[in-house]
Amino acid sequence: MTEAQLTSEIRRKKTFLCIGLDTDLEKIPKFLRSSKDPLFAFNKAIIDATHDLCVAYKPNTAFYEAYGSAGWQALERTIAYLNESYPDHFTIADAKRGDIGNTSGRYARAFFEAMAFDSVTVAPYMGRDSVEPFLAFDNKFVILLALTSNAGAFDFQTLPTPEEALYLQVLRKTREYAHAERLMYVIGATKASFLKEVREIVPDQFLLIPGVGAQGGSLQDVCKYGLNSRVGLLVNSSRGIIYASNEADFAEAAREKAKALQQQMGRVLRDLKI
Amino acid sequence: MTEAQLTSEIRRKKTFLCIGLDTDLEKIPKFLRSSKDPLFAFNKAIIDATHDLCVAYKPNTAFYEAYGSAGWQALERTIAYLNESYPDHFTIADAKRGDIGNTSGRYARAFFEAMAFDSVTVAPYMGRDSVEPFLAFDNKFVILLALTSNAGAFDFQTLPTPEEALYLQVLRKTREYAHAERLMYVIGATKASFLKEVREIVPDQFLLIPGVGAQGGSLQDVCKYGLNSRVGLLVNSSRGIIYASNEADFAEAAREKAKALQQQMGRVLRDLKI
Repeated sequence: MTEAQLTSEIRRKKTFLCIGLDTDLEKIPKFLRSSKDPLFAFNKAIIDATHDLCVAYKPNTAFYEAYGSAGWQALERTIAYLNESYPDHFTIADAKRGDIGNTSGRYARAFFEAMAFDSVTVAPYMGRDSVEPFLAFDNKFVILLALTSNAGAFDFQTLPTPEEALYLQVLRKTREYAHAERLMYVIGATKASFLKEVREIVPDQFLLIPGVGAQGGSLQDVCKYGLNSRVGLLVNSSRGIIYASNEADFAEAAREKAKALQQQMGRVLRDLKI
Repeated sequence: MTEAQLTSEIRRKKTFLCIGLDTDLEKIPKFLRSSKDPLFAFNKAIIDATHDLCVAYKPNTAFYEAYGSAGWQALERTIAYLNESYPDHFTIADAKRGDIGNTSGRYARAFFEAMAFDSVTVAPYMGRDSVEPFLAFDNKFVILLALTSNAGAFDFQTLPTPEEALYLQVLRKTREYAHAERLMYVIGATKASFLKEVREIVPDQFLLIPGVGAQGGSLQDVCKYGLNSRVGLLVNSSRGIIYASNEADFAEAAREKAKALQQQMGRVLRDLKI
């Protein structure tokens, strides 16, 4: 998928919603747990019920790895189903990987080739040669952690360095990486006021904004500071949507939550004429 | 496994060698590729040939994930084999994970419960609540990236912050985390001269030193600055050992390379009376 295609889907569907598939056996409806592959059964139902309200899906690998190779198979089935049934959706492997060069190359193969995700989240701590192997793939994207939505973000990410806070240095230095045009960035929604500074360094890049909903971020603030002329935002909600109900109506309830966010987003895009 | 048990094994076997199982189908002997589970077949042969010369094994998850759920199964078989056949070895899932709290908890379950590794490598960028869920497990260890062995380490890890370089801040701040006694740190061997400063902040903790061998680090330098009275070092070699030959004698050749390192380490421990 290209960035232009993603923007075009956002305009067509009037939504920049990303739905996080943080699928947890303990939280899904009890009646699903006896199915052969409950993680996939849950994901498929959520995807089928919400696909017209969002432009992206983001499974977080931790929730699948917790169930060993059976969990990994559920992740493989989920991305295969998305690519087959909803090829116009942007897919994000929320894996937060990063290693020395030849090893990052292996992770890139895992997520871009073995599973054919459009993008993967990557941690910046190990620097250029840990990120560039992911950037070497045509029409694939790296979504780099810059400022995350958790309390621990203030441990290191906001530390002053001679030029500016560390997360701003991450943005600035990575603009020089090979194929930096394939970089997007994670900016936590709980810190929307930081988006102004972020946009000064990366005016054109897509930002993935987690933390709206369960983690307490405000959509209005995010839009005010984060939108650009090509939209440039993917706003993620996971638990707030997928666990709206754990009864038989779980998919319908998820749809209602997704629809409320889609409608808010549609209003913002209309009001700002983006 | 406890730290005291690890130190005791190091003294008994006169080695602080960790062997990295970065197992790559393109690099293992051709005749193994037709076996049912070539990754595991290779690992088992390497482990059987080297177990008396090392105290730890470290599979890097990237090499397994690159082959999808089949690769993940090979990783599961490898850790199960280690725990069953060589329970006195310290096992490290080199996964470099890290996410917001509830998600890091899932990764911890994946590596400490589903697979029963003794430890996992974790990236510090997301701060306290991304690391502490891993520290909540008795007799399990987190090996936190501080200063890595790759060129990109100088992008962010060595940036000055008001108090000191970022990687030293990582060491200092994480000493205050809950169950910090279960923290070890990755310090790249290609930067052995940095070990002096590291030891001023973390005199007692175990350090995992990658980068000896293929990446060019010197064992002598590492020992000079890194050893403490409880040894406190695990020195890793991956490609330099496991790909010593890709013929029928591959396990024997790996043993010779491991033995050379074990003997160097034995001499250091004897000379320094540690």
